[in-house]
Amino acid sequence: MRLYGYFRSSAAYRVRIALNLKGVAVEHVPVHLLKDGGQQKLPTHLLRNPQALVPVLELDDGTLLTQSLAIIEYLDATFPCPHLIPEDPVLAARVRAVALAISCEIHPLNNLRVLNYLKGQLCQPKEAVDAWISHWMLNGGLEAVEALLPGDEFCFGPAPTLADCFLIPQLFNAKRFNVPYDGLARIRRVEQSCEKLGAFVKAHPAHQPDAE
Amino acid sequence: MRLYGYFRSSAAYRVRIALNLKGVAVEHVPVHLLKDGGQQKLPTHLLRNPQALVPVLELDDGTLLTQSLAIIEYLDATFPCPHLIPEDPVLAARVRAVALAISCEIHPLNNLRVLNYLKGQLCQPKEAVDAWISHWMLNGGLEAVEALLPGDEFCFGPAPTLADCFLIPQLFNAKRFNVPYDGLARIRRVEQSCEKLGAFVKAHPAHQPDAE
Repeated sequence: MRLYGYFRSSAAYRVRIALNLKGVAVEHVPVHLLKDGGQQKLPTHLLRNPQALVPVLELDDGTLLTQSLAIIEYLDATFPCPHLIPEDPVLAARVRAVALAISCEIHPLNNLRVLNYLKGQLCQPKEAVDAWISHWMLNGGLEAVEALLPGDEFCFGPAPTLADCFLIPQLFNAKRFNVPYDGLARIRRVEQSCEKLGAFVKAHPAHQPDAE
Repeated sequence: MRLYGYFRSSAAYRVRIALNLKGVAVEHVPVHLLKDGGQQKLPTHLLRNPQALVPVLELDDGTLLTQSLAIIEYLDATFPCPHLIPEDPVLAARVRAVALAISCEIHPLNNLRVLNYLKGQLCQPKEAVDAWISHWMLNGGLEAVEALLPGDEFCFGPAPTLADCFLIPQLFNAKRFNVPYDGLARIRRVEQSCEKLGAFVKAHPAHQPDAE
């Protein structure tokens, strides 16, 4: 399998964590989101994903899968050890809800193309863009995620799940944009647990071949 | 079961469609997103969902589930007839990817709280807000969804799936904001198929008890 990604894309980072937790090796193919006016917009990549986004997982038969959550659900069905989505439907719903609170309510408002629109089309100065990022990432963002967590070692229980695959990349983004989350004790505890695991360390943007 | 929703919330609309397709009856409890400064922000609702969003599904034992996609995955596991997520992992990934393209890339940028931020904190005039809506809903939004669809009667195949539960509410929003999608032939075909089904008609915002 081949993963088209970008070292700093938090959606690609989520999939890297899931692959590492399952011990599945793939070929990593970088798609540079800033070079060449954005390589994700080139015709070669649009054939892989008409949404012009990473990640894309290419299976050995050439099948192309998009959207990080759909890709991780696929991996969880085909490489079930360890399960990242609990079998109990209620617990599965809680785990997915945290992943979705991050992927639907935080990340879409702070990704590269939205920030470019604020700076470009809406002519917003740096201070307004920084306030926008902080607002959506923290208030009603990570603060609500904190309230959705039970306070375990990982997001839910003693081992990582789908929720941890989504939380850690979002915390990387928070640090990158200087959004403080020190006061969120449950999130901090989960972060410290994940930082001890090779699967998370190896997936970190700084440790990717295309890191700058 | 009880569904806390709002007639015009497209996330609640998705869950209503899924419930109707499965023939599962629930009590509908309206949470008015505009009255009382937003009833979703009242302490009673924050106890149900710290994200201050609808929908919330309350199970008979009082368990509270949030996030429309997580709720529909729960319903698909507990009321499997008809399945809304295919059993084949690759097809499941395609179906989920369309749902996520809508719920992660289109809807979060055009919901009430984001439009309020643009008008309020960023002092954007109506024209700029309309251009924002049209940009994210159409370009790289529904246009990319069109390219992800195979051109079947429904999003994928001869019966509705999770993807249709997400597409139809997004089209309702597009019409509401005068975003034209007549040129998207596959999406239009799916819309016409869904309009013929009672499950979709009954879930429409205009047919809810709290409709205004």
